[in-house]
Amino acid sequence: MDQKRTSAVGFSLPLRVYIEDTDAGGIVFYVNYLKYMERARTELMRSLGFGKEFIFNNNSMFVVQDISLKYLQTAHLDEELLATAKVEDCGAAHVLLTQSVLRDKSVLARGSIKIVCVDKVSMKPKRMPQEMYRALVATSLGAIKGEGQF
Amino acid sequence: MDQKRTSAVGFSLPLRVYIEDTDAGGIVFYVNYLKYMERARTELMRSLGFGKEFIFNNNSMFVVQDISLKYLQTAHLDEELLATAKVEDCGAAHVLLTQSVLRDKSVLARGSIKIVCVDKVSMKPKRMPQEMYRALVATSLGAIKGEGQF
Amino acid sequence: MDQKRTSAVGFSLPLRVYIEDTDAGGIVFYVNYLKYMERARTELMRSLGFGKEFIFNNNSMFVVQDISLKYLQTAHLDEELLATAKVEDCGAAHVLLTQSVLRDKSVLARGSIKIVCVDKVSMKPKRMPQEMYRALVATSLGAIKGEGQF
Amino acid sequence: MDQKRTSAVGFSLPLRVYIEDTDAGGIVFYVNYLKYMERARTELMRSLGFGKEFIFNNNSMFVVQDISLKYLQTAHLDEELLATAKVEDCGAAHVLLTQSVLRDKSVLARGSIKIVCVDKVSMKPKRMPQEMYRALVATSLGAIKGEGQF
Repeated sequence: MDQKRTSAVGFSLPLRVYIEDTDAGGIVFYVNYLKYMERARTELMRSLGFGKEFIFNNNSMFVVQDISLKYLQTAHLDEELLATAKVEDCGAAHVLLTQSVLRDKSVLARGSIKIVCVDKVSMKPKRMPQEMYRALVATSLGAIKGEGQF
Repeated sequence: MDQKRTSAVGFSLPLRVYIEDTDAGGIVFYVNYLKYMERARTELMRSLGFGKEFIFNNNSMFVVQDISLKYLQTAHLDEELLATAKVEDCGAAHVLLTQSVLRDKSVLARGSIKIVCVDKVSMKPKRMPQEMYRALVATSLGAIKGEGQF
Repeated sequence: MDQKRTSAVGFSLPLRVYIEDTDAGGIVFYVNYLKYMERARTELMRSLGFGKEFIFNNNSMFVVQDISLKYLQTAHLDEELLATAKVEDCGAAHVLLTQSVLRDKSVLARGSIKIVCVDKVSMKPKRMPQEMYRALVATSLGAIKGEGQF
Repeated sequence: MDQKRTSAVGFSLPLRVYIEDTDAGGIVFYVNYLKYMERARTELMRSLGFGKEFIFNNNSMFVVQDISLKYLQTAHLDEELLATAKVEDCGAAHVLLTQSVLRDKSVLARGSIKIVCVDKVSMKPKRMPQEMYRALVATSLGAIKGEGQF
């Protein structure tokens, strides 16, 4: 499989469809695209230097606040897919990403995910760490300028 | 737990949060709300007389085309939740539902799901069975008229 | 569906197979029987007065140490199943259960699960709470004496 | 991460733990080790020239008949693990594998999985394709002779 890489669709992660991902319709269970997208987000953050601190971080936690997804084509057992993640916007306490799942150059699903940094105890929004904010803003600018070509 | 019932929020199904539903954040993994909502949709359809034919049906299949979801509060291990499903709109080949996950009277997540009837082989949209269409339209009218009270 | 009940096979919990449980073979993904069994164990413990304390408990945690499972028949979308849990043996720090998944009176899968109480930090075995130990021992004796009939 | 490779523990596949794999105990949900092992088996078969035919194959299907697993240590979010699969024995209609999940050189879980080739309709055992049988037998002999070093 291809390696992880960054391009106009942002960061992308190759994936293989296993039996655990499918359902009795013989296709990938639509809910599992969200797992694929989460893996791509996690690897994007790791590529920026943030491992599990992106998810849990001192007294903070990153939680999904909003998802919006369109399904265009189905995926099947054993196929090689690509999950992408691109930072569209980053505020003090949130990140908005556009994400997709591709097979070859076909988009199977695409959508946007909004993630918010919250206090672990109160669950109220709080500023994310400064260096994470800077890295995410830099990534979003890079993506807009169209560095690389998918 | 309460029984399944129909009301102003539509059909509702009581659920218990098990360890399988949670993640290392100590909360219900956000992806799993979609499973809860699917269970409620399935039970709504069963209550209308459509068992697994709603999912697979002769040469047809119902696939999710669009999801849009907001997460407002987190759910935790062992809590009793309610997943709801209400038919907002029904066309010849699609159904649009609003769904939510509640704990007591608090909405934890809510959103809309669009489902399309497709041909099993070509995966192209096709009319759903006439009796299913009629039942869904009747349900959506009932819901709009506000039969029952949640 | 039937209600939860206790009998010669121990505690039993009715379940419905949803699309989330199936795989591209058109059957319930074998891994998911373990989720069904866990739900039955959890409800057995709740019936004895132990809610999530069975899983997390002050400084303790219950972890699965050993599983052994035979698959005899397949289950399918929309079927009603019964997951059972019977305490076979209980020591100071462990519980051994026999569990099964049934459809009508047919056993689809059966096996044994050993669970150990460990310290949350060191992850080393430790005595479970005394009242839990007593309740589990009483249950295992009751089951052996054949209270009730399945 | 390391690449897939074959050695004394058999075939091994590197994995990353994502949030989807964890539970509220802050560890990898024990059920998910079976998914990791299945991925390793699938990749072992692919390395022998059998893609999804190992799972579905003309009129045959490979189903899990028996699992036996011991859990020795816990795994956590973001860790890099290795799932291994070694063919221990192969008959006309079944394969027996030993499998493990490792972190560095520590075994977190290990066990054996028996898989049977069945007729898709009758679900009765039947001979697996001859070339698959030969490849599996050759692999099991190679593994016993200790080709490679883990």
